[in-house]
Order: sequence, then structure tokens, then C-alpha cells
Amino acid sequence: MPHVLKAGILGATGTVGQRFILLLSQYPGFSIHALGASPRSAGKTYAKATKWKMSQPIPKPVQSMIVHTCEPTGAFLECDVVFSGLDADVAGDIEMAFLKADLGIFSNAKNYRTHDDVPLIVPLTNPEHFDLLAHQRSKHQLKKGFLVTNANCSTSGLVVPLKALQDAFGPLSRVIVTTMQAVSGAGYPGVSSLDIFDNVVPYIGGEEPKMEWETLKILGGLNQDQTAFEFLKGTKVSATCNRVPVLDGHTECVSVEFERRPAPSPEEVIAVLENYRSEAQELGCSSAPEQAIIVSREDDRPQPRLDRDNGNGYSVTVGRVRPCNVFDIKFTLLVHNTILGAAGSGVLLAELAQKKGLLP
Amino acid sequence: MPHVLKAGILGATGTVGQRFILLLSQYPGFSIHALGASPRSAGKTYAKATKWKMSQPIPKPVQSMIVHTCEPTGAFLECDVVFSGLDADVAGDIEMAFLKADLGIFSNAKNYRTHDDVPLIVPLTNPEHFDLLAHQRSKHQLKKGFLVTNANCSTSGLVVPLKALQDAFGPLSRVIVTTMQAVSGAGYPGVSSLDIFDNVVPYIGGEEPKMEWETLKILGGLNQDQTAFEFLKGTKVSATCNRVPVLDGHTECVSVEFERRPAPSPEEVIAVLENYRSEAQELGCSSAPEQAIIVSREDDRPQPRLDRDNGNGYSVTVGRVRPCNVFDIKFTLLVHNTILGAAGSGVLLAELAQKKGLLP
Amino acid sequence: MPHVLKAGILGATGTVGQRFILLLSQYPGFSIHALGASPRSAGKTYAKATKWKMSQPIPKPVQSMIVHTCEPTGAFLECDVVFSGLDADVAGDIEMAFLKADLGIFSNAKNYRTHDDVPLIVPLTNPEHFDLLAHQRSKHQLKKGFLVTNANCSTSGLVVPLKALQDAFGPLSRVIVTTMQAVSGAGYPGVSSLDIFDNVVPYIGGEEPKMEWETLKILGGLNQDQTAFEFLKGTKVSATCNRVPVLDGHTECVSVEFERRPAPSPEEVIAVLENYRSEAQELGCSSAPEQAIIVSREDDRPQPRLDRDNGNGYSVTVGRVRPCNVFDIKFTLLVHNTILGAAGSGVLLAELAQKKGLLP
Amino acid sequence: MPHVLKAGILGATGTVGQRFILLLSQYPGFSIHALGASPRSAGKTYAKATKWKMSQPIPKPVQSMIVHTCEPTGAFLECDVVFSGLDADVAGDIEMAFLKADLGIFSNAKNYRTHDDVPLIVPLTNPEHFDLLAHQRSKHQLKKGFLVTNANCSTSGLVVPLKALQDAFGPLSRVIVTTMQAVSGAGYPGVSSLDIFDNVVPYIGGEEPKMEWETLKILGGLNQDQTAFEFLKGTKVSATCNRVPVLDGHTECVSVEFERRPAPSPEEVIAVLENYRSEAQELGCSSAPEQAIIVSREDDRPQPRLDRDNGNGYSVTVGRVRPCNVFDIKFTLLVHNTILGAAGSGVLLAELAQKKGLLP
Repeated sequence: MPHVLKAGILGATGTVGQRFILLLSQYPGFSIHALGASPRSAGKTYAKATKWKMSQPIPKPVQSMIVHTCEPTGAFLECDVVFSGLDADVAGDIEMAFLKADLGIFSNAKNYRTHDDVPLIVPLTNPEHFDLLAHQRSKHQLKKGFLVTNANCSTSGLVVPLKALQDAFGPLSRVIVTTMQAVSGAGYPGVSSLDIFDNVVPYIGGEEPKMEWETLKILGGLNQDQTAFEFLKGTKVSATCNRVPVLDGHTECVSVEFERRPAPSPEEVIAVLENYRSEAQELGCSSAPEQAIIVSREDDRPQPRLDRDNGNGYSVTVGRVRPCNVFDIKFTLLVHNTILGAAGSGVLLAELAQKKGLLP
Repeated sequence: MPHVLKAGILGATGTVGQRFILLLSQYPGFSIHALGASPRSAGKTYAKATKWKMSQPIPKPVQSMIVHTCEPTGAFLECDVVFSGLDADVAGDIEMAFLKADLGIFSNAKNYRTHDDVPLIVPLTNPEHFDLLAHQRSKHQLKKGFLVTNANCSTSGLVVPLKALQDAFGPLSRVIVTTMQAVSGAGYPGVSSLDIFDNVVPYIGGEEPKMEWETLKILGGLNQDQTAFEFLKGTKVSATCNRVPVLDGHTECVSVEFERRPAPSPEEVIAVLENYRSEAQELGCSSAPEQAIIVSREDDRPQPRLDRDNGNGYSVTVGRVRPCNVFDIKFTLLVHNTILGAAGSGVLLAELAQKKGLLP
Repeated sequence: MPHVLKAGILGATGTVGQRFILLLSQYPGFSIHALGASPRSAGKTYAKATKWKMSQPIPKPVQSMIVHTCEPTGAFLECDVVFSGLDADVAGDIEMAFLKADLGIFSNAKNYRTHDDVPLIVPLTNPEHFDLLAHQRSKHQLKKGFLVTNANCSTSGLVVPLKALQDAFGPLSRVIVTTMQAVSGAGYPGVSSLDIFDNVVPYIGGEEPKMEWETLKILGGLNQDQTAFEFLKGTKVSATCNRVPVLDGHTECVSVEFERRPAPSPEEVIAVLENYRSEAQELGCSSAPEQAIIVSREDDRPQPRLDRDNGNGYSVTVGRVRPCNVFDIKFTLLVHNTILGAAGSGVLLAELAQKKGLLP
Repeated sequence: MPHVLKAGILGATGTVGQRFILLLSQYPGFSIHALGASPRSAGKTYAKATKWKMSQPIPKPVQSMIVHTCEPTGAFLECDVVFSGLDADVAGDIEMAFLKADLGIFSNAKNYRTHDDVPLIVPLTNPEHFDLLAHQRSKHQLKKGFLVTNANCSTSGLVVPLKALQDAFGPLSRVIVTTMQAVSGAGYPGVSSLDIFDNVVPYIGGEEPKMEWETLKILGGLNQDQTAFEFLKGTKVSATCNRVPVLDGHTECVSVEFERRPAPSPEEVIAVLENYRSEAQELGCSSAPEQAIIVSREDDRPQPRLDRDNGNGYSVTVGRVRPCNVFDIKFTLLVHNTILGAAGSGVLLAELAQKKGLLP
């Protein structure tokens, strides 16, 4: 049995922080050791400090834990791993302070995703990007600390099937994706009911460029000496992002063109998606889903309410694989935006890091 | 002042029929003269026969009208124009019987849309297809009768801006569209709340092929002697259709590639859309909207709840006109699915037909 | 034709302020003359300053009006009447300053509702409380100014049928009411979608005591010299208030016990409700509904989506009038919470005040 | 370890049947042995025959089971217990046929609830009504068969706290309850989205009388020789039932008057509710919740989305216990309508029956 990882959570009272708490409480490999939030919450018990919005109750042991400010001191220094669910407006400084304190950090914030020496990893897709951490540690003179980011929620769903297809059939030349994203992606209080009842909001600030460039970093590789990211070239991605009246689960309609001619058939695409296995599964991470990609053959699936918990929220469900009149193939995918698309990615990344020897 | 058209309504108790009643009651150019529904409803007053679901009440004069069966007899024979909101499973035979009785029919049903001698007209887009009616009349040996169909609700929104762009910039080579469609499109009882609460259904039976081919018929022309439709060639359309938890108003995310190089800029596209005028407007039809296409420059529009009633539901609202990474331009449009996308098209088509001398 | 009232609006950018703008723009008896909002908005055009959330667009003439701070200076001093849609945290000081400037104010805020010399009037229920204004003016040494408050949205619906019943059948001994209130009652951004999607929130802060005591002030009378309110005695009211996933329209389930024995039958109750006429109707106010109370005899009405616009939002719709196992009669009512329950009450009160000679 | 009960399910493809399958699959004390549905489904595998609407997938072993017609033959005769989720229009004859075949039946249908010799049992409330089964068996000349019904979903929530209060404080003189019920209570397809989006339907056919009289049967006792039910006398119940846009979980607002003077205080009521234990818990039924009644002290609870899964859906959550202006105490309760309010009651009743020696 592996070492139980002492986990710290930054932004513990927010939507992503609450999800981290629920997820980490499920796995025997973690013990929640330190909770960080804003100065307004610090000093209170977690039960008092948080406006809990999950449908499962606060895990008993966490209820009475005292919330701290987000500084690399005290209990945080005893942590083996720190998960950040911080908002972007504060994540930059805090995460850098924790990194300088030589802590291992998995961040859900967007701040460092674009950085040259920070991996952006979707655990079912590009765990090989962990290999850049030697360079990161050397650059920042760290012994055991590191900073890894997970992707935007909608990107996290998209890249899993794209990676499977790219591995099997070679480069994708063009991808057009339109999303229908759940309100939980905007945190709490997030989207006003007056904006989204009986409505679609056809815009999510900053989301489309994020999906477009993150995909190219994630599906790209490292240079030979593992000191730089090589963004995917030759693949064009265009994203349109919408908010819809759904609580959890982002649905994405994707059209794909392959370079290869003839392009693979729907049947070949289905076979590749169903058989795709990621390193997280090979290494036996306990939060890794049995199947990375579940393919539904029913006409009217995936549906957020029925499929978002597939693989405990860590699987991507794909359906409607069929020919596209304009490109080669189109399909619809569903990702649980706060599990695989946020906190769950962090948890699975930590398990991967431990298997790879980056954590004790 | 033009002749007041005596109007009959087939399928008067259904969702589309109810909308016909509300719309026709607004215009002094029409008087509702005959109501047809299933034998189960025949003989009852309209108020008794219908399960009214509109948020405005049943117009007073209609409440006590007696519902008839859908046969070309009695009051129907006195009608100047007949609107059909019938379901596809019965529309075929009934509409043919009315046509043979030499009546002028505007149908919302899909049955005859594909026929060689039946125009498929979106009133803001291709009123020139009325010119095929001389051929239709001659073929069916009609003096004053005819059959014209309006398009599927989601097609009706798409073709308006596409037509404006095609007129201004020449052929479109590729179009990818993803829809988020309202539940009213499925009629009543239609979509179960258990299927669509907190959910997206990524499939609407038959909708995608309809959008794809209808677009090519509508945006195409007639042959020289006006006896056949010339479908658009060289334009590829790929549609993905979703049902979302919205009452009225279909939202569509569109990416377009032009043949012309250089492609028009977003600013040029916006100017063309805003300035687009259709014949329905030129001829002064009273239900024609002031602007066929309303362009919103706000980031987060159009939204169904805020924009579906633009132009009293007869305008198409377009927003988010911007460059596409993969094609040339992308934008989002909104169409009121039961007004311009269904009953309203019928009403506007009847006004057009009257202006063109096809109705008294 | 009466004098056109120059109207000022305080809190013009909020939800209630937006509704005031839409309503006042409909009536020829008003011209919108001054708009007040927070210093952050002051100096901007209304179109720039507001985050408009109504489904009808901003009336053209209002779009380019410049927003002022909420001080009794400039254009506000030229107003014949001022409507306040201010939040309670600022309404107290601002409304008092306007009153001291001798302006006539109709306030939707709760601050002064409890005051000894401030009438709390639901226009369809207790317009006779205007008679206390002579006392108010004398106390505050005003020539033409005054301050009148309208009731809480849920109270505004409840008291209309209760007043009709009390007038016809004598005192009500006990009333138990349970509400299902729309999200627009909480303003914007108001209720988070994460709190109310697929949910009921069984609590609205401060709402229940408001309903309970406001009812007693409104249904009570004035003392003989019209200098004090005489709260209703002998009527007990118990309210339970819930928030439900509805945009507009508060539904209220009411059980009533009469003092009188035998108690009236459901048929007698229905007759009284249907025939109830208020002074607002007798005096011919243009915003007064044709029927104050619309009684539905269908089993499953009133429903917010189908009935909230009855009487243009100024009617109360009552249905399900039937015997109660515990008290005498129970029924369900619906009130449009932002029209009769808020801004519409203000508009109708201003019309009443003009008819009564309190405004020019 | 007790005998594993072979379970048959009637109406297995419906909403209640699907819930029975999910619940029974969780407990090692049951094995699903026979599935019955309409002739249209008979002969197909369960996966083919059903339109599965639960968010968890069909349990593996059930997917390939063959569905039978609902007749007491074949595999059904091998069952130790039969659960009926049949619709009322067919439940009467089928359940009687199964009873005559000497099978033990737990029915969710309303048909026999009113019968003189059929217990109506909410497992957390009146398991002592099982004592009438000796009389039932003797009357129908059964050796091991019996028929027990569970209550209507909204009644099932109401009676649990009422029973606790009646046991502790003596008779309740008056109860007024207003419900806000979830759409899943109407089965599938059930409530049309066009009826319930942005809406409340203030009526559920037959529900109010059911709540009123079922409460009196359940809270009443048996006569001395256990051959007849003694309905509660002296307690008046008035119910108003509404449908709201919620998927699962009925919320009920209750006002209670006690006979006893002085009436108990809110604190005394809370203590009694929290300490209430039912026989199902005492006997160690595995589906019995740890706490029958969970009392929330937060202002804004219970909420369906956050609390319906309390006690795995078998607990009743009560909140807002406070004084009532008109009666003594008011509170709000929440019950999972398809678990404790339907299928879960059946499962817990079967466990109780086994503990009491009525099943092998």
C-alpha cells in the first residue's frame, strides 16, 4: 500500500474546493491535511466558513477542520501535495509562493497554463508532459516542489477523444467544436437564474481562445531534451462556447477532418475510442476510470443528466459518431466539468505523479 | 385596403395551429373562417376542443367557433387560404385533398417539401420560388389552388443570413451549424420534463438531414422556364441538432467558408446582414419585420429569452460575428421557432402571395 | 385629457427600475423625465449604465437619457412624481431627502412601510389610505410632496381577494398562506442558478413577517380624523414563503376561515371575487385592469406562465376555489410580482393620486 | 445471514419499476428473480424492453433478463416476494391474481389502499399494521401470501413527523399542508416540459383527497382483535398539492395544531423529531436509515437538490421548525418521492416483513 498523501486544498470553500474535498475523501490514498481560503474564512471551522452546495454532505472529519489563509506556512508545509481551486485573480501570487516553498502543486487556475515551463496536463491524455518537471525544478531550484496545471473544463473533455484519434490515425487537420456548458462551471454564485432560466447564453468570457490553444499544447509534445513544449502544428481548432441550463456536465459537438486519406470510417473511429487506454489506467491509479472513453451507440446519447457520472465522472462519454457532410466525422461528447474537467483531474494527476515517483 | 382573406386552419388544436390562431387574429387582413382538427375534436367549440398552451388567451371570436374535421367541404370551401399545422402522419392525404379541391394551402408539414413541383419557401429568403406555382397549377389542373410549404424551424433561421451573405459575397463553400432547439418545436405534449430538465438531448429525429437539404433547395434557384428547382451546388452543409431546456427560440452556431478570396471581414458581413431587405419588406407585408436580420454587437447575444420576440418573432437575430480559426466567419443566430420558424412563415407567405396576385 | 405627469425614477437601472421604464413608456399620461442610479452609473447614457434584462428592448427615448445620482436636484425637481425602485439599504435616506424637497414619491422599498404616517397601499385594495396624506403633509410641512409605499410583492397578491371577501362576508378569522415565489422577486443577479435549478428554497429572508403584518395594515382602516392607521384585529395570518424555479409570477395557496356562520360557499366566494371592483377601476385609471380578480374554473389554473400577464399583469388570478377540510375555503392565487407586485402598483397608485387631486 | 429473498417486480419497465431494480440490486438480502411488464415488452431482454431513465446504468445482471407478462406463473411462482410498480389501471386485477396464487405482494398502486383488509403502511410509521395480515390471510384462505400497500409519495413524507409528534405529544387537532411535488412523481413521460418549464401547476389529480384520508388510516390503529383499521378521529387534515419544476423530492409546508395545552415549543418538537426511531431501525433492516427524521437548523433547508438523498433517500428531512401565528407549529419537510415515497417503501416493508416472520 502506497504512502498516504497529506493533501492541502487552496480555495477550499469554493465550488472546485468543495469538489476536491468530496473526491479526496473517497480515496484511501489521501488524507486532507490543510484547508486554505480567504482571510474572511480563516480561523473558522470549515462547516462555518463554507456555503456548501454539493448534494452529498461535508465529510465528517472535514467539518471541524480550521480554515487557514492561503500561505505556505504551518500545516501546509507538512503537505505532500497541494491542490489549488483558487480563482484566477489570486491564484498567480499564491501558487508561486507555494512553489517557492518547494511544495508540489496541482492547479485548476488558468494563470500558469500558458507558461513555458509549466505542464498543462489532462490525465487521460498527456501524462508524458510530467517529463518537463525536471527542467522546471532545475529552473526554480526546487528539490521536491513543482507546479502542474490541469486544463479548462471544456478542453478536458475535447482532448481525450482527439488524442485517441490522433494516436490511431495521425494528424487531425481541422476541428470545429460547439459546446453547451453547465452552470457549475462558473462557480458560486456564478450564473444568475435570471440569465439562464429558459435561456442560452451564447458566450463565456475567454473560453473559446482557451479551448483553441490549450488543445494545441496538450496534444503537442516535448522537445528532445524535455525542456520545452512543442505545440501541435497543422491542426486548426475553432471553438464556440455556450452556457445552457444544466447543472453539471459539458456537452460538446465536434466535427473532425483527418489528414489521412481515406479518412477512417465511423466504425473505425468507434473502435479506436473504445479501446483507448491512458497511462493513468495502465499504472492502476485508483481514481482512473475503467474506460477512458465510453462510446454510446444509442441515437440520443450522451446526455448530461444520464451520463455525467459515467466512470464516477472521470470518463468521457462519446456518442453519435457518424459521417460529417463537410469534414470526415462528427460526434458529441460529454465531460463532467467539475470532476474530469476540474478537481478530478487534479486528484488523478496526483496519483499519476505518485506512481511516477514525483510524490512520496 | 386589400381584400380580407378568409382563412382556414388545419390542425387547429395543435401547437402550430394555436400559434396560427394568435397570429392571424392580430392582422386585419385575415379573418379566421374555418377550423379543422381530428374527428375527436369535431363538433365541439374550439375552447372545448383544445388544450390551449399559449400565454395569451384564446381570441374571443375563436372560442366559440365549431371545429370541423379536416375535409375540403363546407366552410373550408369558402376560404381564400388554408394554413396547415397538421402532423406529418396525416398531412399528406389531407393536404392533397384540399389541393385537389382547388384551395390555396400553406403547409408547415414536411410531407411535400421534397416534391418536385412544391415550393419550399422561407418568406424572408426565397419568395421568387412562388414563380413555380404556374407550373404546379398546370400540372394539377388547378385554377386558383396551390400548395406551398414553409421550411423546418431550424432551417428557417439559418437560411436568412446565409441568403444575405450569398447575395452579397457569392457562393458559400462550406457551412457547419450546431443548433440548440427549444422544446416547443416538438409540439405538445412533446418533450417529457424527465428528458430535458437539467439536461441536453443531443439528437432530434430527422432534423439534421432536413436542415442540410432544405438549405440547398431554398438557397437554390428555378430553371429558366420555372418548372423545376435547381438545388444549390458547391455548398456543403453539415448540421448537428440538440434539444435544450428552453421554451421558445432556436439558437444556432454557424461557421461559414466563402468561395471568394479574400473572404469578407466581420465588419463587411455585419454591414450586409444589417442592410439585407427581402421582398416581403419591399412589398409592405404587414407581418414583415422592420429588419429581417437584427445584428447585436453585444458579446453575449442573441439569447432566446431576450431576443426571440424581436420583430414580433419574424426577425432573425444574429450576434457574435467574428473570424473563425478554421473557416472564414462564425456567428450565432436566433429564430423564433413557432413564429418565423413555423406559423409566422405561413402568415407572411400568404401576405406575399396576395401581393403577388396569387390570392384574391 | 389630463396633465401628462413628468416622472422621475430612482434606482432606474435595477430590476424594478427597468420595469418602471417599460410600464411608464406604455401610458400617454406619463413622460419619463429623470433617471437616478448609483454614482457609478451617473453621467452615462441609460443604455450604457444598465444591464437590461427585460425581454422587450429599452424604449428608444430612454436609451440616450443621461443617468443622474439620486439627489433632489436638477431634473428631479421638475418632476411631478418620483418612483423609487431603490434597494432598502439606500432607500431610507434618499427617499426622505426627496420628501423634504416636497416631491411626491411612490416607493417600492420596505423602509417606510411600517411608519405611522406613511400609507402602505395596494391600489386594487386600500386606496382610501391616501386620505392620511393630509396628515403626513401637515406633519412634514409639505405643500405638494408626499410619500406612499406599495406592498411587498407576495402581499400585493394576497390582499386583493382577502379584501373582496372581507368586504362581502365580514371579518376573516384565520388565514394560512404558502407561497411559491418567482426568482425575479430577488432582483438581479439575485438568485444563483446553482441554488434554484432543480430545487425549491424554502425560505426568503424577512418575507413571512412582512406578509403577515402588511396584510393587517392594508386590510385595516384609518382612525376617524385620518391621522393614524388602525390595523386589523381579530384576523390571524400565517405565511410560509418559498422560492421556486419560475421567472415571473408568485403563486399562493390560501386557506381562509370566516367569522360568519355559516361560512360562504365556494360559489358565493367565486361570485364575490369576480364582481369585485376597486376604486382604481371606478375612476378609470388607464393601467387599472378590466377585472381586478379573474377567477379560473379550470382545475389546474392559475399557472404563472399562462396567467401572469392577465390584465397586463395588473389582475390577480384566482383558481381552485373549494372547501377546506380545516378552515372554510381554500384557493390558489397568482400575482405578477414585478407588475402588480412592484412597479405596476406604483404606476397605478400615481394614476389614482392624480384622479384624487394629489398630483397635478 | 438471513435467507436471500427472490424478488419479482411487476411493472418493471416503468419509473417505479426502474427504481425497484436499482434499490433491490444494492442489498444482498434480495435477488431479482422475475420481471413483469406489458405484453408489448414480454419476451424481450430488459435492456431492450425498457426506456431506462435513471442516472445510474441498468445493473449488469438485469440487462439480459427476459421480461414476462404479469401473470402468476413460471418464475413469479418461485418468488418469495413480489413488488408491484403497476399503474392503477391494471394493478387491480393483476395484484389480485398474484394474491390468489398465495404470493406476498408489496404494492405501490393505489387500488387496494382503501380496502378494509389491506394494510397501508409507511415503514417508518405504522409497521404495527402488519398485524392485520393474519386476518387477511384467513379471509382469503392464504398460507403465505398477503397484500400490503405503501402510501402515496406525498403522504409518505407527511406521516413520519406527524407520527413522531402524535406519539410524543398526543393528538393533533388540525393539519394544513401545501406540497411542491417533483415531476418524477408522475412517471414517464408524465409531465410535459411545456407544462412545467418556468411554471407551477397548482393541481395534481386525486392527490389531495389521498393525502387527507391516507394520513388518517396510517396514523390510526387496529381494533382489539386486529381485524379492522381504526381511522384517526379528531384530526382534520387539509392538503393542497402543486407540481413544481424539480426532478426528484417532494417539499411540504406543514402547519400543525395540537390538542394539548400548552402546545409543545419548537425546541421540544425538534427534540422529538430528532430522537424518533421506528421499528424498522430497531429491527436492523439494512435499508432503514440511520435517522428516520433529520432536522436541519439552517434557515433555508430542506432543499430537494441538496437533501433528497439524505439517508439514501429513506430519511425525511425537516427544517424551519418555528411557531405558527395561526396554529402551534409550522415546519417544512422533504421526502424522496421515488425512494421513501414509492419503491424504497416497498423494499423496507419487505425487510420488515422478513424480520417479523412473514417472509422466509
